[in-house]
Amino acid sequence: MAQKFQTLPGFRDFYPADCAARNYVFETWRRVARRYGFVEYEGPILEPTDLYRKKSGNEIVNQLFCFEDKGERDVSLRPELTPTLARMAASRQRDFKKPLRWFSIGQFFRYEKHQKGRGREFYQFNCDILGEDSVLADAELMALAIDLMLELDFSSEDFKIRISDRQAWVSYAMDQGVPEESLTDFLQTVDKMERTPPEKTDEKLQEIGLSLAGIEAFIKSGAEASEPLREVLANLEARGLGDFVEVDLGIVRGLAYYTGPVFEIFDIGKGMRAVAGGGRYDQLIGLIGGVEMPACGFAMGDMVITDLVKETEKPAALLEAAITTEQSVDLYVVEADSSKKAATAQVVQLLRSGGFSVQYAFADMKVGKQFQTAEQSGATHAVVIGSEFPQVGIKDLSDRSEKTVSLEALLEAVK
Amino acid sequence: MAQKFQTLPGFRDFYPADCAARNYVFETWRRVARRYGFVEYEGPILEPTDLYRKKSGNEIVNQLFCFEDKGERDVSLRPELTPTLARMAASRQRDFKKPLRWFSIGQFFRYEKHQKGRGREFYQFNCDILGEDSVLADAELMALAIDLMLELDFSSEDFKIRISDRQAWVSYAMDQGVPEESLTDFLQTVDKMERTPPEKTDEKLQEIGLSLAGIEAFIKSGAEASEPLREVLANLEARGLGDFVEVDLGIVRGLAYYTGPVFEIFDIGKGMRAVAGGGRYDQLIGLIGGVEMPACGFAMGDMVITDLVKETEKPAALLEAAITTEQSVDLYVVEADSSKKAATAQVVQLLRSGGFSVQYAFADMKVGKQFQTAEQSGATHAVVIGSEFPQVGIKDLSDRSEKTVSLEALLEAVK
Repeated sequence: MAQKFQTLPGFRDFYPADCAARNYVFETWRRVARRYGFVEYEGPILEPTDLYRKKSGNEIVNQLFCFEDKGERDVSLRPELTPTLARMAASRQRDFKKPLRWFSIGQFFRYEKHQKGRGREFYQFNCDILGEDSVLADAELMALAIDLMLELDFSSEDFKIRISDRQAWVSYAMDQGVPEESLTDFLQTVDKMERTPPEKTDEKLQEIGLSLAGIEAFIKSGAEASEPLREVLANLEARGLGDFVEVDLGIVRGLAYYTGPVFEIFDIGKGMRAVAGGGRYDQLIGLIGGVEMPACGFAMGDMVITDLVKETEKPAALLEAAITTEQSVDLYVVEADSSKKAATAQVVQLLRSGGFSVQYAFADMKVGKQFQTAEQSGATHAVVIGSEFPQVGIKDLSDRSEKTVSLEALLEAVK
Repeated sequence: MAQKFQTLPGFRDFYPADCAARNYVFETWRRVARRYGFVEYEGPILEPTDLYRKKSGNEIVNQLFCFEDKGERDVSLRPELTPTLARMAASRQRDFKKPLRWFSIGQFFRYEKHQKGRGREFYQFNCDILGEDSVLADAELMALAIDLMLELDFSSEDFKIRISDRQAWVSYAMDQGVPEESLTDFLQTVDKMERTPPEKTDEKLQEIGLSLAGIEAFIKSGAEASEPLREVLANLEARGLGDFVEVDLGIVRGLAYYTGPVFEIFDIGKGMRAVAGGGRYDQLIGLIGGVEMPACGFAMGDMVITDLVKETEKPAALLEAAITTEQSVDLYVVEADSSKKAATAQVVQLLRSGGFSVQYAFADMKVGKQFQTAEQSGATHAVVIGSEFPQVGIKDLSDRSEKTVSLEALLEAVK
């Protein structure tokens, strides 16, 4: 008896229908990114662990799949892409015209409790603009993120993009006399406000000379608090995307390295899950790569978005259609006369060289069974090879109509 | 001063041009596989190490990137896909109509000395037919492998597919009275013949009652030695692919699990490197998954084929064109009047919603510089926003001709 093997907890098998769903999401990411003039890149899945120690938060470092390789290097499966991007961009920055518009689709790994919408591996779309100070680059990324959602057939009733400005918070804190060494603590307190009892937040704020009431008033001031946010808003409105945007200064984002506008896409009404998020990080590339380069970017994982697509009527219908198409062939060749093996091989090759996807039975099979298989294959037509070859039959599998054509006319006839 | 990070030895960064080359190879694999009616799947990159201990040869097990995860599991980065495929197919075999025609494109890891054409990570195309006894399935895979090469624009002067039959060797050995327990040794001796001094091979053969002369005569007998090979040959000839095929019984293939026809694609004249290889393995799925299922398959790695494409004139030209296309946009929007930021945003969005890929400058930039950037972007036309908006200019970047259209007519005009 063979041993029963299973996938590791938190890791996924992609059977054909799952893989078609994955490919549909990937292709949507790729298509929209290219429409925005972004080019694709990819880094290694395994990196020196030090690359993450420097910049990724403690939480991420504690979740690393890290080990010592056979050459005694301390290595990790990558938990995120930004450090790799910083390394790559810095080391060859002279070779590229700025700004760089780069995107990537790849797999990432974090050893954490796996649950719905979170595994130990996941795919992520990363999209960054490097070497550009203008806040219009931030707006470009937000527009791209919105267009990803629209391309998946979500509407303004399904999601919102909440935008904020980390720099506005820093200015506010400075104005209020918060000492610089308390800034990180302060931002984390704001980041956790929604999930923390108000009296606890207030207590923490009072320690650095602030109050909950003051913070709440600042949040209410919205875009008034930030010139960059006003520019971003105007730009998104000019694109006709204003309906999707909500200024919410309560968004700070956990990662320490953001320095300007930040944003998150949330679903509406289906759990308010975060679907994508990002922001400006002007100091990180200098920190990791030793080359100063302003930057902004965002990421979208595959798990939450795919769940959300499946749970939402119109996006789900598009996905289903894509899954069916990816698993269907154009034509099925039926061998009605088993002495015509060479003819079958010849016709199959001819049809494929014409660009059609084609299946046929390898082993001898009753003709009725072959037609049944043809219908299951998703083919619209069967091409029938019989004793009258080189005349061949073409059967429309939806209305069952048939016609006969010569081998020379076949490719033209099935087009 | 920031620490200088580098990729681990044997791991690759894919900068945009590298990534475009990778994508070109992936898309070619995917397009041809779909034309053959194959569907895509994918397994986890990390698997329990035991999955490989059972079946992969010792050489592969010694090259594993293996470690203990935070849950004290003995895990490995996958060195090959076939054990995962066997596990997946066996565990859900009732859900799929046989034969399964499955392909996959993914990354694999082996800790070995890295050199040209061999890294510690590589991508591999895997293509398998499961649940089919007929040798026409083997022929289908060989035809698919040949068509991959043709799709990349290789000709019969660039490569050959050498086919052999492991079972023919087993029958020969049985006929000669070789004891069953010596079979594996015998096959390995034949596999290594080309790289071993003849007298040493002869010595080994004599130990089991055979001779080099006898073996050489058997190899010369070619397709005469194997009914399946004759069927395969007839099928490939009927497809018009006979020119690419060479029967060479000297091919045995190293892996222990092959049970029938085996094949390898070699380049001709550029180092005779193996580009792809595979064969029938009727017992492996039972061994790993506990379900008997005949199977055949092959794999092609990305490194040798990409090197070969780059070294061969016509394939290299196709690749270069694909790299250029992937990194070019359709249109570049020039903002000739910096007070027209909203107009620019609106036009950019309009063009993208029409399916065009569009770039523009985020920061204010002199008009001449914008046109220069437009030309570098690969765009065929620039769309010019000036004081006469909502009239917009369209400039053909190759012949420098210009026209003016209304905003409403723009999409139609740039098609």
